[in-house]
Amino acid sequence: MLMHLVTDSITEQIYRIIKEKILLTDLKMGEQINPRELASEFNVSVMPVRDALRRLVNEGLVVNKARVGFFVRSFTRREIQDIMEVRRLYELYCLDQYFHELDREKLREILNACRETETLSRRHFDELDEAIHELIITASHNDYLIESYHNVKNQIIICRHLDRDRMEVAHGEHIRLLEAILEGKKEKAVDILRSHINRVAEAIL
Amino acid sequence: MLMHLVTDSITEQIYRIIKEKILLTDLKMGEQINPRELASEFNVSVMPVRDALRRLVNEGLVVNKARVGFFVRSFTRREIQDIMEVRRLYELYCLDQYFHELDREKLREILNACRETETLSRRHFDELDEAIHELIITASHNDYLIESYHNVKNQIIICRHLDRDRMEVAHGEHIRLLEAILEGKKEKAVDILRSHINRVAEAIL
Repeated sequence: MLMHLVTDSITEQIYRIIKEKILLTDLKMGEQINPRELASEFNVSVMPVRDALRRLVNEGLVVNKARVGFFVRSFTRREIQDIMEVRRLYELYCLDQYFHELDREKLREILNACRETETLSRRHFDELDEAIHELIITASHNDYLIESYHNVKNQIIICRHLDRDRMEVAHGEHIRLLEAILEGKKEKAVDILRSHINRVAEAIL
Repeated sequence: MLMHLVTDSITEQIYRIIKEKILLTDLKMGEQINPRELASEFNVSVMPVRDALRRLVNEGLVVNKARVGFFVRSFTRREIQDIMEVRRLYELYCLDQYFHELDREKLREILNACRETETLSRRHFDELDEAIHELIITASHNDYLIESYHNVKNQIIICRHLDRDRMEVAHGEHIRLLEAILEGKKEKAVDILRSHINRVAEAIL
C-alpha cells in the first residue's frame, strides 16, 4: 500500500475543506462562519482558520463584515446576472474558438452516461454538468483562462441549489449540446449553449 | 479643510503600497521582496506585511517559494500569450457588445489629449492607454466583469515595461481606434483593437 504524506499547510487544508462545504452548500449563502468553532473542530489554533477565511474572502466566496464576522457570500439578482454574463463570455468563446480541440472521446463517454441515466440524482447531474462545461473550457489549453474561469465557476456553484427545479430540462439541453458537437455542428452547438446558459440564469433569478 | 481619516487596516494600506510598487515596476519582475525590510520601513510588525504579501500571492502578482521567500511574479512566454488571450476576450467582447454604451464624451476628451501630445512621456502614454481600455470595459456596466478584468490587467501591467519600444506605434493605434469609435464604425474599431492587442502581445514576447 502506498503511504500518502499530506504536504499541504494546515491553512491550505482548512481552506479546501471550508471551500468544499460552501460549494456543496453544507454552508449556505448568507450563513455565518465561526472561526473559533471551526478551530476547535479541527483541533488547531484560530489563526490558520482565519487565514483560510481571508483567502476565501479574496476569492469572493466569503465576506468579512467588520466587527461582525465571516459569512458565506450571498448574491443579489444583479450580481448573479453579472456573473452569468462572464460565464457566457468564457464558455461561448471557448466552444466557438476551440471547437476542433474538444476531446470527442470524453464527450462521447459523457453523452453515454447522460443517456444511460434513468433516475437522475442531483449529485450525478452536477458531476455530468461540471464535466461538460469543464471540457469546453480546457479545450483552450490556456492555463490562465482556465484558472480565471474557475473563479467564475465557484461563484456560480454557490448559486446552484437555487435552480433545483430545472435539472431535468438542463439534462436534456446537455444531451442536445453534446450531440451537436459530436455531429460537428459548431453554430448549432454555440446556439444551444447560449440558450442553455441564458435559461440557467433565468431559473436562478 | 477636510480632515481625512484613514480607515483602511494596516494590511490593506501595505497591500496597496506594495501593489503600486509592483505595477510601477519599482519592484521588478522576479525581484525578491523582503518582509522584514518592508516592516521596518513601514515601522510595523512583520505580520501585516506577510498578510499583504499573501493577498498579492492570491492575486497572482507575487509568488511565495517555500523556504526561500516572496518574489514579484515573472512570466514565461507562454503565460504572457495566455494572459493576452484573456485580455483580448474581455476587450473585444465589450467593444462589440457595448459599442453604443461607450462614453463618447470622455473618448473625445482622450482623443484630444492624444492629438495634443507632442513629446510623449511613458507616464502620459500609460495614463491615456489605461483610460481608453478602461472605458471599453466599463461600458458593460457589469461590476463582476470589470473586477475580473482588473485581475488580468494587473498581470499585463507588470509586463508593461517590456514593450517600451512600441509606445509611439501604440499611440497611433489608439488614435485610430478612438476615431473609428467616434465615427460609429464598430467593425473597423473591433478590427483595430484586435490587431492592437495582438501587436502588443508580439512586442512583449
